[in-house]
Amino acid sequence: MAQPSMRDAIRKAGREEFHERGYYATGIAAITARADAHKGSFYNHYASKEDLAVEVITDYGNEQRMEMLEDASVEPLTRIEQHFTFVSEALRAFDFRLGCMLGNFSAEITAETPRIQETLTANLDYWAGLLTKALDEAAKAHAAVGHDSETTAWLLIDGYEGAALRGRATRSARPMNAFLSTGMPQTLAAFRSHYTK
Amino acid sequence: MAQPSMRDAIRKAGREEFHERGYYATGIAAITARADAHKGSFYNHYASKEDLAVEVITDYGNEQRMEMLEDASVEPLTRIEQHFTFVSEALRAFDFRLGCMLGNFSAEITAETPRIQETLTANLDYWAGLLTKALDEAAKAHAAVGHDSETTAWLLIDGYEGAALRGRATRSARPMNAFLSTGMPQTLAAFRSHYTK
Repeated sequence: MAQPSMRDAIRKAGREEFHERGYYATGIAAITARADAHKGSFYNHYASKEDLAVEVITDYGNEQRMEMLEDASVEPLTRIEQHFTFVSEALRAFDFRLGCMLGNFSAEITAETPRIQETLTANLDYWAGLLTKALDEAAKAHAAVGHDSETTAWLLIDGYEGAALRGRATRSARPMNAFLSTGMPQTLAAFRSHYTK
Repeated sequence: MAQPSMRDAIRKAGREEFHERGYYATGIAAITARADAHKGSFYNHYASKEDLAVEVITDYGNEQRMEMLEDASVEPLTRIEQHFTFVSEALRAFDFRLGCMLGNFSAEITAETPRIQETLTANLDYWAGLLTKALDEAAKAHAAVGHDSETTAWLLIDGYEGAALRGRATRSARPMNAFLSTGMPQTLAAFRSHYTK
């Protein structure tokens, strides 16, 4: 039976390769080389590169401390601001040159890898669901009228992902800084404009 | 000397392959097959796949009718709204499943293809420059105070690209519809809030 530690090494190497070079540019040989494994051993652990990608995306999603969005000790909109600041820090650590793994896969994936597509959609939906819940909480506390929590949640995600994408393309912190300092506050201000108390 | 018509066929095939499958997933053989050309003939026309990509991105940029953003017969912010509606229509024609070519390359490209990166940056900067000019025009006409045309231009681009990206990942029109009906108007409303007349 395969040793779990080699599986972990392959998963870690796959994650780094996918993030640095993308899904299609990464071959099994590059992953096993990075993991110090024999090329053939890959298939002792994963049935396909797609299988590995599904696991890597799931891991990536699990690392984003999404529970911050449910922390009832913090005002809901402040939670959202802290959340986007937190998730952007992981991108900043690489000077934004790697981008967000979810966004990168979103741009690469085709109908040929349906399970990657399902995993991406599930992660994005989960994220939007938590943001929507926090926004609903704020709306309720302030008796908001005519607001649309779900659309606001998605505008925040799309603004963040758009900034991550351009930060990656131009190797620059400016897109994310503009989202955090201007784009996100404007979207939240538009949401607050529906408060009646 | 190489016949221009074969070069055009390769450029068209490359553009379609890159848009449908991405840069790294597309091999020279797939491009020449789609162009009905011999594989070896590729190099009579292009020195490399990167060369072809630079040309494809440039063509794509040139097709976006950017001159709409300079049409003095239309109110500047209306021009911007019409522009984003127009460019999104090309994505809608494919049910958003291909995404925006600029965004897709932004997510894939690494330091290994510096000329693609330069071409992308040049196209994005040109786009933002025209949007900024239109916003400046509106700001001047309405004696705006404390506005930031450049940041607003980039927030529009990032919101649009984020929506294109998620539309691609989820095969859905909803992200772009949300941008056009809510995200863009909110960003423009925030800009108008600086008008003093």
